[in-house]
Amino acid sequence: MPYELHYWPGIQGRGEFVRLALEAAGVPYVDVARGDESAGQGVPALLHYLNDGSVTRPPLACPVLVDGKHVIGQTAAILLYLGPRLKLVGASEADRLWTHQIQLTIADAVDQAHNTHHPVGLGLYYEDQKPEALRAAQEFRSQRIPKFLGWLEAILARNPKGSQHLVGARLSYADLSLFQLVEGLLYAFPKATRRALKKTPLVLALRDRVAGHRRVSLYLRSERRIPFNEDGIFRRYPELDG
Amino acid sequence: MPYELHYWPGIQGRGEFVRLALEAAGVPYVDVARGDESAGQGVPALLHYLNDGSVTRPPLACPVLVDGKHVIGQTAAILLYLGPRLKLVGASEADRLWTHQIQLTIADAVDQAHNTHHPVGLGLYYEDQKPEALRAAQEFRSQRIPKFLGWLEAILARNPKGSQHLVGARLSYADLSLFQLVEGLLYAFPKATRRALKKTPLVLALRDRVAGHRRVSLYLRSERRIPFNEDGIFRRYPELDG
Repeated sequence: MPYELHYWPGIQGRGEFVRLALEAAGVPYVDVARGDESAGQGVPALLHYLNDGSVTRPPLACPVLVDGKHVIGQTAAILLYLGPRLKLVGASEADRLWTHQIQLTIADAVDQAHNTHHPVGLGLYYEDQKPEALRAAQEFRSQRIPKFLGWLEAILARNPKGSQHLVGARLSYADLSLFQLVEGLLYAFPKATRRALKKTPLVLALRDRVAGHRRVSLYLRSERRIPFNEDGIFRRYPELDG
Repeated sequence: MPYELHYWPGIQGRGEFVRLALEAAGVPYVDVARGDESAGQGVPALLHYLNDGSVTRPPLACPVLVDGKHVIGQTAAILLYLGPRLKLVGASEADRLWTHQIQLTIADAVDQAHNTHHPVGLGLYYEDQKPEALRAAQEFRSQRIPKFLGWLEAILARNPKGSQHLVGARLSYADLSLFQLVEGLLYAFPKATRRALKKTPLVLALRDRVAGHRRVSLYLRSERRIPFNEDGIFRRYPELDG
């Protein structure tokens, strides 16, 4: 049975961190909500896991990974589960925990990026919170982007196995997530992110290395990669960059 | 060597989720930043792990758990590590992952509670973002508190081993974190939270059960439990409740 990924069909969103891991590993998976309802796929299949009272361990939100009887929510928990199975994490407990810690910190950066366009209400439109968004984005650009990228740079610089990867000497899901974070920031805040990246050359080099990974680069050029857009987490609202 | 917990000394904050696990298990630990600088403790010891270039795997933020050579950041990652060691999680991979998934979702609720008083800037004072905070708190009270507590209620109702615990038939760190989330919400949003709890009797009963746990109740009455205050994550600003 291939892995089933359940995520909103029109955006990269948090599901993209799972897609990148599955694609980099080259394992078969079904992106269920983008499939055909007549084949039991589509959004109804996704909503089953969120809303159906028969699900004993219901996730609160997407992404959801289904692997046989395992139903797993929370992006970082999914990657914790997939990491060893996809050989995208080291073998030791210390390496697994450190990779997970990096993933959780990248998830914090993603949450804060989302907050720039939705500072006062997840249930409101961006257009209904623009003045607040302008203020939120200002601090995110000037403080948070440099802080997160600077932290990733320090990890690469201090890696005893070399600066090619965040953990050890091999590709991990944390590397893939760094790539996605940088891509998202470059899409949403191109000016501020390019400025910050000038001070984090190791982060930029790892971003390029992941983009050049054979299976990842094939994926990025395929139709399976949904383009960034203004329904996702990383949105290009020029007034929020600067 | 006892566990070392490093967290800001004046607040419960995210460190409290780790404290509750250590206290419930009854293991010795040092709350380092609250100790004496002349004994090598205090805030300088904490800052070492955040700022010193000699730390190979530096956490971005507190809490930090130090166990011998292990230095672990991110609250959920710390509990992932401590869970089996403190016997606060089930033995199977499925139970461990589900407990972790609940913890990550509680962490999302905590982040969103924090956002109510800091919607536009982590680096700004509450007083500098009060109009935005009023808007953010409105949605948090009316939508998010019922959503998170309702989800926890569903988990308890659907637990095949009974509604006494979130996972299986024994106390887990997720139960302790549910307690802390409810306590924090009751402190910060007493009216809105009491309204929501009327519809989530199983959540309220589990909160009470944890409060009555022998070691937890001793801890809560001790000086080791820092009172809630307006420097922490859960702050009582009456204008944000309603």
